[in-house]
Amino acid sequence: MDISSLRQQHPDHWKKACAIRTLTLDAVAAANSGHSGMPMGMADVATVLYEKHMVFDAKAPDWPNRDRFVLSAGHGSMLVYSLLHLTGDPEFPIEELKNFRQWGARTAGHPENFLAKGIETTTGPLGQGLSMAVGLAMAEESLRARWGAKIIDHYTYCIAGDGCLMEGVSQEAIGLAGRHELSRLIVLWDNNGITIDGKVSLSDRTDQKARFAASGWDVFECDGHDPVDIDRAITAAKASKGPAFVACTTHIALGSSAQDTSKGHGALTDAKLIADTKAAYGWTHGAFEIPSDVKQAWEAIGSRGAEARKAWEDRLAALSDAKRALFEQQFSGDVPKKLSATIRNVKKQAAETAPKVATRRASEIVLEAVNPIATETLGGSADLTGSNNTKTADLGVFDPINRKGRYVYYGIREHGMAAAMNGMALHGGLRPYGGTFMCFADYCRPAVRLSALMHVPVVYVFTHDSIGLGEDGPTHQPVEHLASLRAMPNMLVFRPADLTETAEAWEIALSQKATPSVLALSRQNLPAVRKTHTNKNLVAQGAYVLEEATGKRQVILIASGSEVEVALKAREALEAEGIGTRVVSMPCMELFAAQDEAYRRKVLPPGAVRIAIEAGVRMGWDRWLLGERGREGKDGFIGMTGFGASAPAERLYQEFGITPEATVAKAKALLG
Amino acid sequence: MDISSLRQQHPDHWKKACAIRTLTLDAVAAANSGHSGMPMGMADVATVLYEKHMVFDAKAPDWPNRDRFVLSAGHGSMLVYSLLHLTGDPEFPIEELKNFRQWGARTAGHPENFLAKGIETTTGPLGQGLSMAVGLAMAEESLRARWGAKIIDHYTYCIAGDGCLMEGVSQEAIGLAGRHELSRLIVLWDNNGITIDGKVSLSDRTDQKARFAASGWDVFECDGHDPVDIDRAITAAKASKGPAFVACTTHIALGSSAQDTSKGHGALTDAKLIADTKAAYGWTHGAFEIPSDVKQAWEAIGSRGAEARKAWEDRLAALSDAKRALFEQQFSGDVPKKLSATIRNVKKQAAETAPKVATRRASEIVLEAVNPIATETLGGSADLTGSNNTKTADLGVFDPINRKGRYVYYGIREHGMAAAMNGMALHGGLRPYGGTFMCFADYCRPAVRLSALMHVPVVYVFTHDSIGLGEDGPTHQPVEHLASLRAMPNMLVFRPADLTETAEAWEIALSQKATPSVLALSRQNLPAVRKTHTNKNLVAQGAYVLEEATGKRQVILIASGSEVEVALKAREALEAEGIGTRVVSMPCMELFAAQDEAYRRKVLPPGAVRIAIEAGVRMGWDRWLLGERGREGKDGFIGMTGFGASAPAERLYQEFGITPEATVAKAKALLG
Repeated sequence: MDISSLRQQHPDHWKKACAIRTLTLDAVAAANSGHSGMPMGMADVATVLYEKHMVFDAKAPDWPNRDRFVLSAGHGSMLVYSLLHLTGDPEFPIEELKNFRQWGARTAGHPENFLAKGIETTTGPLGQGLSMAVGLAMAEESLRARWGAKIIDHYTYCIAGDGCLMEGVSQEAIGLAGRHELSRLIVLWDNNGITIDGKVSLSDRTDQKARFAASGWDVFECDGHDPVDIDRAITAAKASKGPAFVACTTHIALGSSAQDTSKGHGALTDAKLIADTKAAYGWTHGAFEIPSDVKQAWEAIGSRGAEARKAWEDRLAALSDAKRALFEQQFSGDVPKKLSATIRNVKKQAAETAPKVATRRASEIVLEAVNPIATETLGGSADLTGSNNTKTADLGVFDPINRKGRYVYYGIREHGMAAAMNGMALHGGLRPYGGTFMCFADYCRPAVRLSALMHVPVVYVFTHDSIGLGEDGPTHQPVEHLASLRAMPNMLVFRPADLTETAEAWEIALSQKATPSVLALSRQNLPAVRKTHTNKNLVAQGAYVLEEATGKRQVILIASGSEVEVALKAREALEAEGIGTRVVSMPCMELFAAQDEAYRRKVLPPGAVRIAIEAGVRMGWDRWLLGERGREGKDGFIGMTGFGASAPAERLYQEFGITPEATVAKAKALLG
Repeated sequence: MDISSLRQQHPDHWKKACAIRTLTLDAVAAANSGHSGMPMGMADVATVLYEKHMVFDAKAPDWPNRDRFVLSAGHGSMLVYSLLHLTGDPEFPIEELKNFRQWGARTAGHPENFLAKGIETTTGPLGQGLSMAVGLAMAEESLRARWGAKIIDHYTYCIAGDGCLMEGVSQEAIGLAGRHELSRLIVLWDNNGITIDGKVSLSDRTDQKARFAASGWDVFECDGHDPVDIDRAITAAKASKGPAFVACTTHIALGSSAQDTSKGHGALTDAKLIADTKAAYGWTHGAFEIPSDVKQAWEAIGSRGAEARKAWEDRLAALSDAKRALFEQQFSGDVPKKLSATIRNVKKQAAETAPKVATRRASEIVLEAVNPIATETLGGSADLTGSNNTKTADLGVFDPINRKGRYVYYGIREHGMAAAMNGMALHGGLRPYGGTFMCFADYCRPAVRLSALMHVPVVYVFTHDSIGLGEDGPTHQPVEHLASLRAMPNMLVFRPADLTETAEAWEIALSQKATPSVLALSRQNLPAVRKTHTNKNLVAQGAYVLEEATGKRQVILIASGSEVEVALKAREALEAEGIGTRVVSMPCMELFAAQDEAYRRKVLPPGAVRIAIEAGVRMGWDRWLLGERGREGKDGFIGMTGFGASAPAERLYQEFGITPEATVAKAKALLG
């Protein structure tokens, strides 16, 4: 690579790009860890993108109509931090960059959206950024159709590396973007031919351009170090009819002795290497030192969008009061105004009619009431619409000819769906929910984890939540999934028992601003377990006394979802034998754990045999039982110890011993 | 679709194919559930494949050199069961088909490899079968190179649907197959244009042929209902240089009123529809009735390979005794002969040198000893070779020019890697292991679950197993992963504390025949905690007393992996203050749970304060503590309650309070 000619041909550009490169070298050296090669390789592309194309205002990084920039190759985080510092984001003074990868800094090892307004997304797990960018672009299309181009009208740019493109989720995202003709989405591929293990050719010989074209993308190419060529390619990509894929030929760790090698991917911390590289750049300044002309040029870029932002604010102010209030409510993530009253109505009707329905159908009943009064919802399913009961009649289908549609046919793409929903939620203005079978939560788990980590209130509608789904067998029967989802920090896992609990769970989920929710819903019909109406949301306490013991309380049965019915029947039998039995419904362990000790003790007082009942593994329940040796055989669990099997649901419950009879027998054995 | 012309042009073929179709209709009707459309649509392709190409012997379905057939679109399981019954597999009399989807039947809703020898793989979670087929084909290449074409020399066929191709894992598999030029792999795409939600075009407009070609596949097409055209395409595909993709244009639910609709995907149980469809087929026989000429024709197909099998057995018998014994050991999955002695040597050296190494490096030390004496191992990593320490010098790299290589550069494809390893393990003759960062266990979780469900002893090398990885931050720091993996049935999760425990964990993992293992390994260096050598494998007990209290035992500290060091230091401090403290190392909860009560009670006796220490979430540990209210504050947990952060590891341990000091303080507080 002839660096000197680059320097000579475009000296102003070169200096701006080298500011990124040298900040990267300096920060990685200071941290003694990190990834140098990617920002060094993509500095030219990023510089042209920010200088000539990105519409943003560094002083107002959360302006709703800004262009979005996603660094899918998140390990190259110094690219983002350099851009934020150089353009003048007030959260990124040079001290932040000097603290790269240190405790408390905004400059974490990988970009974390919750640490600074200017960081659009958390990235690092490869492929996620690209897939979230698809969601951001879908959100833009949806919101532009709803609010008009005066209010929402922007591009989504994404830099992706070979790792992003090799991860399977990328294919799901590519397919989704192609199908929806997301012409405002521009993916810039850092085509450097290098991965951690060596050359890309060690593990792949995919023609990426042909692959993207096969899914309906428009494909462009450029020399990723020639600013004129980069500008030409991005300009063309912006005018494309489909989503645009720009293959940028680059050199990883440009200009260093590690250029074009896998060593260049990692942390370049050798002092001589750094000095030599800076010399090759013609960079004579000290560590973390940006000459004022270069900084000023970058700050001019950072303020280039200020006028556009102000004009946008005027347009927003010109909306009717009602419209503006709605915009602000939906973009802030505040609870929809009529949510509480709507849920109350559903509950009242449920108390009157006591419908025996599957909770997946209960969820649909709730959505039928909620979707009309919460127009920020955007529903969907990974090709299980009729099974997940996620589509209500009012939504309409989102596609290129109906951008106002609020339902997405995601295809058989759980992972792409979840990642896209993350992107939509990050965008603001939308509250996405999406369905699949609970067993396939595994397929989208990396994106579900990002919902939790990024603090985005996506709602996962996971139906067919146990062996209760029956004949499809163990590949489709969740057993460990409730435990594995409950293990995740910042995640609410709801397993409601009937329509009333389902309505309450939805109310809580739709009220979250920083926590995603899982709704675990049954395939099979369940009786109404809450007989009398109360305005209070009992699910919000996580667990509550559903039926009290009539005599002396000897047994407490704790259950969730479809097994609350089992507990109630077991209680009836025990009470008939004079054994006082309380039934506790526990639709949300996380919310119960968050209650104060007094309440928890009131619901689960000592002195009685406790049995938990759930058609899943025991893990997670021990916390609410008495511990293996704590009370010498005073606790029990009725549930699964291994995988399920293929047979009708009733037979499975019998064979696996999740029955009122088994519960009664266990209670009596424990009572001795 | 003009069925009558098909009937007339190829009457013998038609009858054979209709036997599959009508058995499907009858079984689905009897079960009142299932998926009719796929077997009805692909019956012609399957018939030609079995009649003209598949080398197999229905009476010996586990013959090691048979062609493999994988139904990736597993919901169409009646295709497999029909073929097994028709060709004369003794495990599939007609009664099995009549019991479709019933308790105890081999004919589960989706194919389950563990229910019958003739079922190659468990499928149903879409995309997995295709990806396992890639692993099967890699195994064939590897074993053919090792044993010669006289012993291993076969094709792998796979039927995949649109769902398989939309799932992201398919892209990882396609890329892997293309890179490795798996010319013996033939994927037959059921190109019917229909998914559950409707037309494929609702959610995708990918040109699949172009997509496969972009990754180096040879692409073919055929009319999936014309036996001559199917035969031509498969014949051409067998002669391809790369992996072959055959796009078979088909009609889902052929000949029924649900043909070409999403209704046809599911269970066609309407009596009139079934009668009309059979009439259209010209099929006049009763339910589950196959006319004898048709059955005989199918049985002739089933025995066509018997001669080839016998000839193969003669060739195997002609091998030297030593070679044959090795073949039998490696294909049966028996423990490598010298494994025990080799592990013992590693442990002896560890006891002598007490090396302070990361357990990922310890794992490499073990592999350096084991790989030469266990040549059935096939290692790899998802582009983290240098970090996972999975590659030893003796292995060589598996690729198209060195099929004898025993190390696979899987690329950034955790999911494809895990699924491919499942395929290799199913093939027999190989014991695959593969590495990634533990956090990215999420990316391959659907395939990890299948390892457990299918009873295949794949070994997952998950390094960087906690916040101990430091600066990369929360996206790379597992927190809930140990719990979520331990929640999975039939899975051994090992978290060894030093080289000795790592060696013992590897010994157990490599001795499994029906259970996969996870090795959770540290990035950071750890001191040797086992000071004296013993031949006995202590990890096999799951947990054991590592250090006993010197005085009266007041505290028991239980820890795993890197936190055993924390426990030992805390013990030292507590003992110094006269507080007798036992340290229990618990490298494998599942194995400890499997011990008898007496042993468990010996290790964790009542009467002392118990504290568990692990740099992950508490879930799973409550079982070994005393329960929330069991002993009124006599238990504690030192670990994580939320996501990690980006900073040097030592700082993180301090900030999150996972330290000897915090442990001492908690112990004292609990002692009161």
